[in-house]
Amino acid sequence: MAEAMAKYGNDIKDLFEPESIAVIGASHETDKIGYKILNNIIRGGYRGRIYPVNPHGGEISGRTVYRSVEEIGEDVDVASIVIPAKFVPDAVAQCARKGVKYVQIITSGFSEIGNTEEERGIVAVAHESGMRVLGPNIFGLYSSRASLNSTFSATDIKPGRVAILTQSGALGIALIGKTAVENIGLSAIVSIGNKSDIDESDLLEYLIVNDDTRVILMYVEGVKEGERLIASLKRVTEKKPVVVIKSGRSKRGAMAAASHTGSLAGTDEIFDAIMKQCGVLRSDSIEEAFNWCTFLAYSPKPGGGKNVIITNGGGVGVLATDACEKFGIELYDDQAELKKAFDPVVPSFGSTKNPVDLTGGANSKDYDLALSVPLDSKDIGAAIALYCETATFDSASLVPMIEGTFRKYTDAGKPICYAAVGGEAVEEAIEKLRHRNIPVYGDVYPAVSCLGMLNRYDRYLREKSDAIDEADIDVASVERIIDGALAEGRKFLLANEGSAVMRAADVGIPESRIAGTIDLAVQFAEEIGYPLVLKVVSKDILHKSDAGGVALDIQNREEVVEAYEAIMHNCRRFNPDAHIEGIEVCEMVSKGVEIIVGARRDASFGPVVMCGFGGIYVEVMKDIAFRGFPFNRIEAMNMLKELRSFPLLMGVRGEARKDIDVLVDVMIKVGAVIRKCRRITDIEINPIVVYEQGKGVKAVDSRILIG
Amino acid sequence: MAEAMAKYGNDIKDLFEPESIAVIGASHETDKIGYKILNNIIRGGYRGRIYPVNPHGGEISGRTVYRSVEEIGEDVDVASIVIPAKFVPDAVAQCARKGVKYVQIITSGFSEIGNTEEERGIVAVAHESGMRVLGPNIFGLYSSRASLNSTFSATDIKPGRVAILTQSGALGIALIGKTAVENIGLSAIVSIGNKSDIDESDLLEYLIVNDDTRVILMYVEGVKEGERLIASLKRVTEKKPVVVIKSGRSKRGAMAAASHTGSLAGTDEIFDAIMKQCGVLRSDSIEEAFNWCTFLAYSPKPGGGKNVIITNGGGVGVLATDACEKFGIELYDDQAELKKAFDPVVPSFGSTKNPVDLTGGANSKDYDLALSVPLDSKDIGAAIALYCETATFDSASLVPMIEGTFRKYTDAGKPICYAAVGGEAVEEAIEKLRHRNIPVYGDVYPAVSCLGMLNRYDRYLREKSDAIDEADIDVASVERIIDGALAEGRKFLLANEGSAVMRAADVGIPESRIAGTIDLAVQFAEEIGYPLVLKVVSKDILHKSDAGGVALDIQNREEVVEAYEAIMHNCRRFNPDAHIEGIEVCEMVSKGVEIIVGARRDASFGPVVMCGFGGIYVEVMKDIAFRGFPFNRIEAMNMLKELRSFPLLMGVRGEARKDIDVLVDVMIKVGAVIRKCRRITDIEINPIVVYEQGKGVKAVDSRILIG
Repeated sequence: MAEAMAKYGNDIKDLFEPESIAVIGASHETDKIGYKILNNIIRGGYRGRIYPVNPHGGEISGRTVYRSVEEIGEDVDVASIVIPAKFVPDAVAQCARKGVKYVQIITSGFSEIGNTEEERGIVAVAHESGMRVLGPNIFGLYSSRASLNSTFSATDIKPGRVAILTQSGALGIALIGKTAVENIGLSAIVSIGNKSDIDESDLLEYLIVNDDTRVILMYVEGVKEGERLIASLKRVTEKKPVVVIKSGRSKRGAMAAASHTGSLAGTDEIFDAIMKQCGVLRSDSIEEAFNWCTFLAYSPKPGGGKNVIITNGGGVGVLATDACEKFGIELYDDQAELKKAFDPVVPSFGSTKNPVDLTGGANSKDYDLALSVPLDSKDIGAAIALYCETATFDSASLVPMIEGTFRKYTDAGKPICYAAVGGEAVEEAIEKLRHRNIPVYGDVYPAVSCLGMLNRYDRYLREKSDAIDEADIDVASVERIIDGALAEGRKFLLANEGSAVMRAADVGIPESRIAGTIDLAVQFAEEIGYPLVLKVVSKDILHKSDAGGVALDIQNREEVVEAYEAIMHNCRRFNPDAHIEGIEVCEMVSKGVEIIVGARRDASFGPVVMCGFGGIYVEVMKDIAFRGFPFNRIEAMNMLKELRSFPLLMGVRGEARKDIDVLVDVMIKVGAVIRKCRRITDIEINPIVVYEQGKGVKAVDSRILIG
Repeated sequence: MAEAMAKYGNDIKDLFEPESIAVIGASHETDKIGYKILNNIIRGGYRGRIYPVNPHGGEISGRTVYRSVEEIGEDVDVASIVIPAKFVPDAVAQCARKGVKYVQIITSGFSEIGNTEEERGIVAVAHESGMRVLGPNIFGLYSSRASLNSTFSATDIKPGRVAILTQSGALGIALIGKTAVENIGLSAIVSIGNKSDIDESDLLEYLIVNDDTRVILMYVEGVKEGERLIASLKRVTEKKPVVVIKSGRSKRGAMAAASHTGSLAGTDEIFDAIMKQCGVLRSDSIEEAFNWCTFLAYSPKPGGGKNVIITNGGGVGVLATDACEKFGIELYDDQAELKKAFDPVVPSFGSTKNPVDLTGGANSKDYDLALSVPLDSKDIGAAIALYCETATFDSASLVPMIEGTFRKYTDAGKPICYAAVGGEAVEEAIEKLRHRNIPVYGDVYPAVSCLGMLNRYDRYLREKSDAIDEADIDVASVERIIDGALAEGRKFLLANEGSAVMRAADVGIPESRIAGTIDLAVQFAEEIGYPLVLKVVSKDILHKSDAGGVALDIQNREEVVEAYEAIMHNCRRFNPDAHIEGIEVCEMVSKGVEIIVGARRDASFGPVVMCGFGGIYVEVMKDIAFRGFPFNRIEAMNMLKELRSFPLLMGVRGEARKDIDVLVDVMIKVGAVIRKCRRITDIEINPIVVYEQGKGVKAVDSRILIG
């Protein structure tokens, strides 16, 4: 938690690299978790001091057992607690008294089954003495730096470059097994469990500075302190890529996640958008995420330049080309250069076009030669090397060929991804190469997806900007409006109040005045100019159209009078008790591109801004984009570019470009309002009409909720 | 080819189950393809007669070598030709004289490198004697029924239930290897190559009746005779599922495919739509397609009922729930029933909700019990069983548990899919089970995707209807209009001709007449009624608006006169040489939902109908759907439902439902026009305005191309 972090400083290093660890609940019964953890710590080669703790005392695995943590004569950095839930509070209190820095509570049976108070109590006791809590409801932690395996996993963990943070303990244990099978080395794996105190953000702070960690994989079910997580993720992705598997993507999945961890899943669209904003790569499947991590952990960053596909089979070449388009990988296209460079290595019936087809007759040497071309080219930044098992190429020679070319590419700082499709011999080659940490895949699509993720991450790094654009908002005015509405017991603002908020944020709105009499209405109409719209103003009539409270396209003085009378008549009939404050005489906005801009305070992530294709289509087309706020103009522009309807803003069929600059301003202004006026929970301008470049926007209708 | 099929009858069985096979170009040099094929035929246990053919004569592998195919004393069903390209025509001629039924030409160097004439010549010679040609440019064929492996693959092929048709030989050879690694048994694998004669459709006809084949996997790069393929695929999918990997999905991939096989890739959207229409399941990756095939080959068809997820880990349960939503798998939802059924097998801290969480303590027996619940339930049609490796469940007992439950489900006719996530022991279990043809996956998402495909296929079978709805078109009128336009050297119809075609097809259009004088224009205007639109009619002015040739919202007699004069003036200035036939006086259509309906003659698939969100948005939102024509009203409705903008037709925000029935009629009418009037290549009605139910549609603007 943020306060705890601030209070105790960033000493999370001691959790991953403790000088001593106690196992409270250590057992000599080999099927008990209290045995397994102790045994893993010992077998894993941990170099610090190990203290088994158990009230029965005695010895386990030749080590003296302490009856309580307080009996231990020396300092204890970490205590792993594996005793039944009812004894945990007492053990935590003992640890606090002892001055333990971290407790990791393996035991389950706390907030995940509703025992929230008990869990809070434990954390409170811990914090009193400056102790931090990992868990409860976790499987422990592995740290390659300390050779520390304090999990109860049955599998040996291979040290390496991937760090895993998992909210699900059961899945985490299974993932440890799966990393072993897939030959994925880990720098750390941590189970976060109920996140009573330490959460992802705390752990990420350590992983940023831990040089062994080159890529981070997170399994997330729900986010608690989203604003802090955003900040941490942004800091991490500056240094290393992050892959996330977020469950609860579907509505039903979110419900299931909530019921099993008690976490709030939130809207998936917002999670998804914010991950993108933080440069985090998201996957739906474990195997895909593993593929990405292996590749990202061992590939150099792209240094620019386009990509080339080299293959011995046309079919896989085409499949790779398709996948490149899907993952936004640009293929090198200079036919003349390709011909010049590859002609010497491609037979006459092959192709020097990209994909470069060496044909089925290609052997190891042909690949070596062809793959040396991108190494010598300034314009080619990365290669996709594809191999289809053939009778002419001994699959056993795949291993030296791939190992050799991979080293050369790595030395040259160019990424290369390999797919090899075939039988037993190919599989064996892949396994051998993987064992040597060379990422090779058995299918084209997964291989290309890995390079795609590296490119996506690289693009994020190149395009990101930490600059924040904020807007000047007349906060005092807005606060006064909110005070007034709340004083009347309202949780929403009236149309004129909404307009006042827009004015306070300097968002263009149609000119309008509220008239209490027909004469005033006529006077205002003449001042504003025709055509006009007349609307009822009443807090008792929310849906004005339904009440017959709106008249459009008023062209002259006579029509003002008619419309005024008709609206009053309709509204009185609709709701005889309604208090009608007047009639709004409003400039009728001319046509333009209708956009929706909104902002809300998300339960997980705080201020979030939304934009989309406006009018009635927003519901139907679901063409919307989200971002966490604050952000800058570039990010706002990225949101607009994400919309399928973006070309409408750029002008289609010879129309002029619309005033995107002012629209971007509005997005930042709306974000600033929700950020600075914390009693506003929801703003929706729908539509905001965007005119040609230089002609600005008009926020036609704004709906603002307060609370 | 269709004619060849008709001529020689459906005896394609002899290709897969020949009584004798000759290998022309048989060799004793073990690295030659002529040796490998002969050796594979012998080693594969083929039970028919085998004739090696080579002008040098002698013996190979103890068998007499014939100097020519004509020397063979007995009948030859199939001849496999593996000699250099220049000798192939002669060998084919000899086979034809000998009365060989099928030649499979392994040799490459024909149409794929531009030698199209030579290839055509070979087929012509073959057809003269009723002989059919597979290839050229193929790796051969495997048929489990005949224990015939006439490929040059280095891998032994495991017999089984999956048939593979591949257009790429290189990929095919690699796929043979990969099926061996993944323990996938094949009923057949055939390389189609250049499709000079025999194509996918011919082979599918055999696979329909071949009982060993339970699922068909096709790798396709380009389609030649699409209309016939549609018919074949529809017949196949009635009996068994088809999975397709189509490369050339991207524009660039399509170019690459075209350059390497000479095949026309066509528009991917149309291919995709037509596969859906035929009930074919499409995948982007080989591994995914293999997963689907394994599952589909060994799972019973769903008998109805919803689905239940049973897990020992909450995390994987949520991931599976997400995947279910993604793949349209409905989860069983009766909480009371779930509680009743699962309470006895779920511990108190687990969950009887769906996903049913047995918790990490579950053992083999718990799974057995829990998985028996869906078996006994009428409402639960299928189960998703998830296992996360735990310390309490010995992964070795996974094999008997899964094998046992899988048999029970299969016997009960209920599908079940398994995902087991974990380490070495889990991997071994998966491998063992796969070896026994039990589909188990190492990750949640791929497992659920398999059940998703089974459901999708099942839904197709339940919803499909072979009924064809056609429309009465006044073909004679349309043909006269086309004659007229062609006589004037035009490849397009004028607006009034387009309107005439619409009338011939009985598609509602705005009332309109063409006036040659101002007086007539005024008379027509008074007859039709205001508001009106006036448009120039001239074959020399295509883009009327650009020429100032359109006037909107004409409200009265005076405005008609003004507009008439203005249009004439503008158009004469725009193009002084333009021949102006008159001014169209046209009912101005009132507002409604703007849809686009089109049809065209696709180079691969013949008549194709398109519909989409109309107006300028069609380009921007790309909200369009395609189908091959003919189809029926249900299919037309499915097209509309595919549109993201479909809710607009159903009526949003309290609007009434639109006249979807009439719109569906129009789609069928437009399809019928393009089908029956073969000189029309393209029709686009944009927009067609759809009014409230009962009020029909108005085709505002139609663009028709002829050729």
